[in-house]
Amino acid sequence: MGIVALAGGVGGAKLADGLAEILLPGELTVIVNTGDDFEHFGLRICPDLDTVCYNLAGLHNPETGWGRRGESWVSAEAVGRLGGPTWFRLGDLDLGTHLERTRRLKAGDRLSAITKDFCHSWGIGSSVLPMSDDPVPTIVLTAEGELSFQEYFVARRCEPEVMGFKFVDILCSTPAPGVLAAIEEADLVVICPSNPWVSIDPILGVPGIRQVLAEKVVVAVSPLVGGKAIKGPAAKMYAELGIEPSALSVAQHYGELLSGFVMDNIDKNLTKILSISSLITDTIMVEREQRHKLAEEVLSFARTLM
Amino acid sequence: MGIVALAGGVGGAKLADGLAEILLPGELTVIVNTGDDFEHFGLRICPDLDTVCYNLAGLHNPETGWGRRGESWVSAEAVGRLGGPTWFRLGDLDLGTHLERTRRLKAGDRLSAITKDFCHSWGIGSSVLPMSDDPVPTIVLTAEGELSFQEYFVARRCEPEVMGFKFVDILCSTPAPGVLAAIEEADLVVICPSNPWVSIDPILGVPGIRQVLAEKVVVAVSPLVGGKAIKGPAAKMYAELGIEPSALSVAQHYGELLSGFVMDNIDKNLTKILSISSLITDTIMVEREQRHKLAEEVLSFARTLM
Repeated sequence: MGIVALAGGVGGAKLADGLAEILLPGELTVIVNTGDDFEHFGLRICPDLDTVCYNLAGLHNPETGWGRRGESWVSAEAVGRLGGPTWFRLGDLDLGTHLERTRRLKAGDRLSAITKDFCHSWGIGSSVLPMSDDPVPTIVLTAEGELSFQEYFVARRCEPEVMGFKFVDILCSTPAPGVLAAIEEADLVVICPSNPWVSIDPILGVPGIRQVLAEKVVVAVSPLVGGKAIKGPAAKMYAELGIEPSALSVAQHYGELLSGFVMDNIDKNLTKILSISSLITDTIMVEREQRHKLAEEVLSFARTLM
Repeated sequence: MGIVALAGGVGGAKLADGLAEILLPGELTVIVNTGDDFEHFGLRICPDLDTVCYNLAGLHNPETGWGRRGESWVSAEAVGRLGGPTWFRLGDLDLGTHLERTRRLKAGDRLSAITKDFCHSWGIGSSVLPMSDDPVPTIVLTAEGELSFQEYFVARRCEPEVMGFKFVDILCSTPAPGVLAAIEEADLVVICPSNPWVSIDPILGVPGIRQVLAEKVVVAVSPLVGGKAIKGPAAKMYAELGIEPSALSVAQHYGELLSGFVMDNIDKNLTKILSISSLITDTIMVEREQRHKLAEEVLSFARTLM
C-alpha cells in the first residue's frame, strides 16, 4: 500500500509518525512544507522538515513536539552573551543538522538529496520529501506590514493580525524529485492535522501538486478541535480572516480536493452539514499510542472511500 | 605607553595576553592575522582572532591554547552522525562566536566592529583589531598543489611539502579602521612569536602596514627555539623552503623592520652573528606567569632601544 502524507509542523509530524509506525518501510512518503524555512546566522533552517524527521526517528523532544530530545543550549547561550538574537533558539544537537545541511547546500546538493541522506543516518524507513528544492518563503501579510514567517511565528508569537499570505516565487518552483511520482503511485493521500494556511497551502501551491492530487483519494484530518487549534495560530488566522474557526471551515478550505474528512468527537454535530464522508474520533495525540491509533482509524476510514 | 602587538595563533596570543596583563587598559592594541579565516558550514571562522580574544578574556582552553575552556562538542558529534566533516571540530561555545559573527557580517557589519563588540562582551580591556576587514585568504602552495590554509593546517596536518604562499587579494585589501593609527601612535611594536610565513607575513602584506612600521621601534620574539617551533609548522616550512630553521632565519626574515630581537637561552650562540640588539631569555610560555614574565622582559629590552 502506498500512502502519501502532507505535513507541516508538530501535529503533522505526530500523525506522520503514527502512519510510519503501522505501515511497512517504504509504504509511506511524507511531503513536507518548506515555506517556513529561513536563514538564520547564515544557516538554512527547515523547521517543518526537521520536526517531521525528528519525530519519525524518535529523536524529537516529547515535551514540545519540536526540537531534539535531550537537547542542550550551549551555543545559543554563547550567542546571547555576545548580545546576539535569542528569539529563535538553536539547540546544540539541532545545530548539527543545520550546519551539515547548510554545508551540503553550499556544496551544491539539493535539499531533497540531503534530507534523504539525513533520514538514512537517522534510521528513518519512510521517505521524507521537501515539497520543493526551491525556496518558497512564506510571508505573512499583517496589519503591521509584511513579516517573514518565523518573524511572525516565533519572534512576534503570532500576535500581529493576519490579513493574508504570500508564498514568494511559488509559481516558479517545481516539486522536489519524487513528489509527483509518490502522489501518482499512492493509494491514498492523508492531509495531516497541520495549519491549512501556512503548512498545507504552500504544498498545494507548488505547480503540479494540486493537479495530481485531484486524481486521488484524499483524506484530511482537522487541525481544529472544537474551534481551537491544538497548537499554533490556525484558529486565530481563520478568525482574523473573517472565517469562523471550525473543522467545517477546514473541510471547506480544502474543498473538492477531499474524499473524506476526519474530525474530533467534540465536533460531531458538524457532520450534519458536511457534504462529504467523515470519520468522528479522538484526534488529539498526546501519548505516542494515540498517534498509531489515529493513523489506524484514518486508514480504515480511507479504505471505505477507495 | 602605547604598544602594538602583531599576532597570529597560540604563541602570539600567549604573549599578547602577557602584555595585556602588565599594561594598563587601553595601552595595548593587538593586530591579528586573518589570513587563515575561512568559511565552514556557511559560517565565518577566524581562528587567530578567536584564539587571541579567548586568551585575553581568559576563556581559552589552557591545555590546547586554542578553543574554549570547558568546551562541549554536541553539535560536532551531531554533524559526524550525519556523515559530515569532522576535520575542523567546532565546539559548542566556540560555535556561538561563529554564529553571531556570521549573522552580523551578513547584516553588513564590519569584522573590526564585530570584534570590538565581542571584546566588550568578553570584558577585554585591550583593543583587538583584525589586520583587515577584507578577506585575504592564505593559500599554501605545496608539492600536491594549492591548498587553502585550513586544508593544509588542519585537514592535512601540515604534511604536504610547502613551496610558497599566496595571500589572495592582499594588494586590494586595506588595513582595518584603527590599524594604521594604532601603529603610528605606538611607542613600540612587538611581533609576537607567531609563524612568520603564515601569521605575520599576511599582516605585513596589507598595503600601508609595512610603511608605518618602518618608522617604529619594532621588536620580534622568535617562534623558533633551538631550531624547532613550539607549536605549528614554522620550522618545517623554513626547511622545505630551503632555509635553515633557526631564530637567526626569523630575524633575517623580518630584516630591516627590526630594531631588536628576542631569542631563547638555547639560541644564545646566535647572538654573535646577529647584527641587531638582542635579548636572550626564557621564551617558552607554559604557565600563565611565564607570559607576564616574557612580556616584562620584552618591554624592558625594548625601552633600551627607544
